[in-house]
Amino acid sequence: MTTTVLQKHALPVLDFLLGEWLELDQLLTRNAFEEHSLDSCQDYLAAASDIAAKFFEPAQRISDLQEPRVAADGSVVLPPESHAAWEAYRSFGFLSARHAQAFGGLELPRVVDLASHVIFGSSGANLVPSMLTEANAALILAHGTERQKRVFAHAELEGRWTGTMAMSESEAGSSLSDITTRASVDGSDHDEDPLGPRYRIRGTKMWISGAEHDLTDNIVHLVLAKIPRPDGTVDPSTRGISLFIVPKLLVDPDGNVLERNDVSLIGLNHKLGNRGIPNTSLAFGAGAWHPRGREGAIGYLVGAPGDGLRQMFHMMNAARTEIGLAAASVGLAGYALSLDYAKQRRQGRPTTTSGKDTSASQVPIVEHADVRRMLLAQKAYTEGAVALALYAARLMDDETTGSVAQAEEASELLDLLTPVVKSWPSEWCLEANSLAIQVMGGAGYTRDYLAEQYWRDQRLNMIHEGTHGIQALDLLGRKVRIRDGALLRALERRVLHTCERAVESGLAEESRSLAQAWAAVLAATDAAWATNDPQDALANATPYMQGFGHVVMAWIHLDLAVTASSSSHAQAGGRLAAMRYFFAYELPKVGAWLEVASRRESVCRDVAADDL
Amino acid sequence: MTTTVLQKHALPVLDFLLGEWLELDQLLTRNAFEEHSLDSCQDYLAAASDIAAKFFEPAQRISDLQEPRVAADGSVVLPPESHAAWEAYRSFGFLSARHAQAFGGLELPRVVDLASHVIFGSSGANLVPSMLTEANAALILAHGTERQKRVFAHAELEGRWTGTMAMSESEAGSSLSDITTRASVDGSDHDEDPLGPRYRIRGTKMWISGAEHDLTDNIVHLVLAKIPRPDGTVDPSTRGISLFIVPKLLVDPDGNVLERNDVSLIGLNHKLGNRGIPNTSLAFGAGAWHPRGREGAIGYLVGAPGDGLRQMFHMMNAARTEIGLAAASVGLAGYALSLDYAKQRRQGRPTTTSGKDTSASQVPIVEHADVRRMLLAQKAYTEGAVALALYAARLMDDETTGSVAQAEEASELLDLLTPVVKSWPSEWCLEANSLAIQVMGGAGYTRDYLAEQYWRDQRLNMIHEGTHGIQALDLLGRKVRIRDGALLRALERRVLHTCERAVESGLAEESRSLAQAWAAVLAATDAAWATNDPQDALANATPYMQGFGHVVMAWIHLDLAVTASSSSHAQAGGRLAAMRYFFAYELPKVGAWLEVASRRESVCRDVAADDL
Repeated sequence: MTTTVLQKHALPVLDFLLGEWLELDQLLTRNAFEEHSLDSCQDYLAAASDIAAKFFEPAQRISDLQEPRVAADGSVVLPPESHAAWEAYRSFGFLSARHAQAFGGLELPRVVDLASHVIFGSSGANLVPSMLTEANAALILAHGTERQKRVFAHAELEGRWTGTMAMSESEAGSSLSDITTRASVDGSDHDEDPLGPRYRIRGTKMWISGAEHDLTDNIVHLVLAKIPRPDGTVDPSTRGISLFIVPKLLVDPDGNVLERNDVSLIGLNHKLGNRGIPNTSLAFGAGAWHPRGREGAIGYLVGAPGDGLRQMFHMMNAARTEIGLAAASVGLAGYALSLDYAKQRRQGRPTTTSGKDTSASQVPIVEHADVRRMLLAQKAYTEGAVALALYAARLMDDETTGSVAQAEEASELLDLLTPVVKSWPSEWCLEANSLAIQVMGGAGYTRDYLAEQYWRDQRLNMIHEGTHGIQALDLLGRKVRIRDGALLRALERRVLHTCERAVESGLAEESRSLAQAWAAVLAATDAAWATNDPQDALANATPYMQGFGHVVMAWIHLDLAVTASSSSHAQAGGRLAAMRYFFAYELPKVGAWLEVASRRESVCRDVAADDL
Repeated sequence: MTTTVLQKHALPVLDFLLGEWLELDQLLTRNAFEEHSLDSCQDYLAAASDIAAKFFEPAQRISDLQEPRVAADGSVVLPPESHAAWEAYRSFGFLSARHAQAFGGLELPRVVDLASHVIFGSSGANLVPSMLTEANAALILAHGTERQKRVFAHAELEGRWTGTMAMSESEAGSSLSDITTRASVDGSDHDEDPLGPRYRIRGTKMWISGAEHDLTDNIVHLVLAKIPRPDGTVDPSTRGISLFIVPKLLVDPDGNVLERNDVSLIGLNHKLGNRGIPNTSLAFGAGAWHPRGREGAIGYLVGAPGDGLRQMFHMMNAARTEIGLAAASVGLAGYALSLDYAKQRRQGRPTTTSGKDTSASQVPIVEHADVRRMLLAQKAYTEGAVALALYAARLMDDETTGSVAQAEEASELLDLLTPVVKSWPSEWCLEANSLAIQVMGGAGYTRDYLAEQYWRDQRLNMIHEGTHGIQALDLLGRKVRIRDGALLRALERRVLHTCERAVESGLAEESRSLAQAWAAVLAATDAAWATNDPQDALANATPYMQGFGHVVMAWIHLDLAVTASSSSHAQAGGRLAAMRYFFAYELPKVGAWLEVASRRESVCRDVAADDL
């Protein structure tokens, strides 16, 4: 088995999180997981680690240097290393791991499935379109017909085909109600197609990841479009949006591949990072080249007309958690790299009361307090982010396999936490990746190391699948308001439970700090909405989310520390140090963020555009 | 005259800073500047703007895409656009602007000279080695012999040759006492060379910017090396370091170029950004290829043996201010770009109490409160940073042309502020450049816009010319301790003067906040040093510097707002908004940073390396 610096660092962290913190043993006693044991889960993660080390890590830099390009025949070519990574991932069955055996799956707990994504994510996040493909299949499994599941989802979970989510357009990114892609029924027999109600789709989509490549022959696009009313108008709101399966290659009802559908690549976006997966602009029904002319691309309706965005959010919420996890994983990779560097690189000597002894040997830079600060900050950001995302995964398991009460509570918590799981790692693991560069100094700024690529790759996570600002509007504008704060109360129970456990573990001071910080979040929520005017409340949604996120992370760190301090785990020292770092250096930042939200600070709203 | 978005934005800012805030008119009444007027200074900046728009902006992306490469003959090739930019810059006389007429200079105030660097820096920071060349010449003018000035500095100020600073080695970056480059006298007549005491230099240097290129034929390296004692040993401390002029091509006493010196390129570093200037590894006296064998490269001592580092700090301090200014300028460029984008790009609609009217047209994104927040933050970070750096430039003018008392006070302030001028813009204009990407969303993440390059270029500034951590040690370890806090008292007088002016301008609340924050800085300084143990005090030097820097910036913003509010300047609204943003969103962060410094928080020092 191949072990890299990264695996050496990540595996014990995952071991602690799953084995001790998230009580995987208890989860495995549920009927749904009867075929699994702690051992089989550990074997699964060991296999993931092995494949990640063999096929993902070596491909990561290559996927950056050999950016996807359009070949003469219009196909998009990925380097052989990406093909090898995809083949290893696909053939082992990682895509279907959490799904039913009927679809080739292992019915693994989500938390184990996503723990493997930490391993792959830190070895080559977005090297291959695995996340999109699985999430696409999961949406079809949730909302598609039996045949749509058998034909499309099954092929995706086996990795014979891949999947995309085609939502944005060049003039409709954050504002999906403005999409101009249109769908109209395809012939009088359109309702009798075995693959689902058949439509013709016309329009162009932008920012579509994985929409053209040579890893698989077929690609399943999930496309948002509006169906015009008989008078030709459309519902201007998001309620007018429907969802369609639009395969790159048409298929017969048994899933055999036929000729091309009228889907064509307009071009590739050239990105700052995250270059492994091509990001495209795509035309549906542009079709001068197509034998059947300009009738539009064939698409099959999923669910009911007008349900498109609601259904897409099934995929989107999963994708947001996955992005938080990917952000955490890339952060973790930078941390492991810079920690390893800091332990080896010798430079300088400590300043003592008697000055510096320049005749002594230089010390490894991990001995310098400021370097340790940057490493401990990275540890707190990245391992905290991994813990938060896996906590969400564990809630997903409760949602599907817990008791009714457990499932209900889990749903509430997931609803509330999803914008935090997406945004917090995106923001703070970017800072972690910047600190990794800083620890490594000039070396970190060169392309001789992956630190700079991690930082570039990471920068995307605050943008895609709903920007930071969109997450903040979701949190303060919707989630904390649902059922008069019911979701907040669900989280409060967990936070206060941790506070109690902390007192029992001799961490009374931290318990008090967390309880106070939580109270400040509640007060800020009320104060932001005191005028009941969204423009007042939401003007500072992002600082509110930053404060909220930091309090959530303080809770996670305290809970981790309590678990570690009551166990004999080798990570106890590290967990306590990361928690203490977070409470000393990070939690005190919360006041500044919540304060502007609380007083509905209006300087940003009020400034005239001409004064900017 | 060519005007770009950037110029349109930058010029009014500079106009306000020089004309109203830094009272250029008063400065120009001094004898030293009797040949200049407000008009001539404005013409100078207009010319800079014109040349920057014509030659720098178009070259900026090209210098990134066409990274310097080593040609077959060992030379390093820059793209034609970089040559054109250098030629335009050089031939206009920007290199010598602040210097004496004897060296082709205009004897311009430093503050006007550096204002032109804002223009060039925001149009193509580090596109050509202008800053290094000028700073190299200035060092020779300060410490060299008359002939060294005439031969080397003069050629640099005319841009016939360029200059470098060759300090770091692969095992001695932040730790300069460990350099292994050695110098030994060259023959019995070594003291009689007209160019200065002649030595032979042997060693290798790392991270040397601009040490090989095809812009000019000759390059003047300023090299740090140790002169062994008769017994072969060297002083292990930095007191053993001497400084040498080592030209790439040897020259006769009149400056005519002769054959190559024994200086050879080992290789180029491949960087994340900042690719315009080649960054090199360089060998002195490697020389198998050299006709005179392995005797070492010829170098001429500058000043006295052992004075090397002290002299180099002349160049280093200037370079640190220039880096702060460059960081500010790149930040400003990103701000101008994203502001322009936000005013044009339409997306979404405001949420009002009655929900969203999706039938209305989409609005320019500058209308969204969160986008305005990101723009106003950028304005506060970048224009504040420009103001801070030009404030330092104005102090330099006081140092050289003010009364004895003015000069003394200016020196104290500069000593104290230099680490802040270097570090604050490096950190916060990086954040500004990240916000520029965020404002632009997916578009900002593509290479279709310069936002991503600004962000990559900017990342270097926290690393070179003394890392962030080194600046923090300088500030808390040295500067605030000099003469029992004399430098702090000098700054305090200015801060409290601003507080008084603010009260008179109706900004009493902000005046109080600033006075309190300043008091917190003083208290944190004392508390950090309460045990008089550097290891206690300096463990949190970086958070201390972050807090210190933010208080300095609050002072700058308040002072700017006071000036603007008492003038009829068109920028008054913007200045007040930026100040209010800073006091509402940024100043409250200070407590968290100063608190850990004050209590000498030891969690980072104490964590075991194995627990990381």
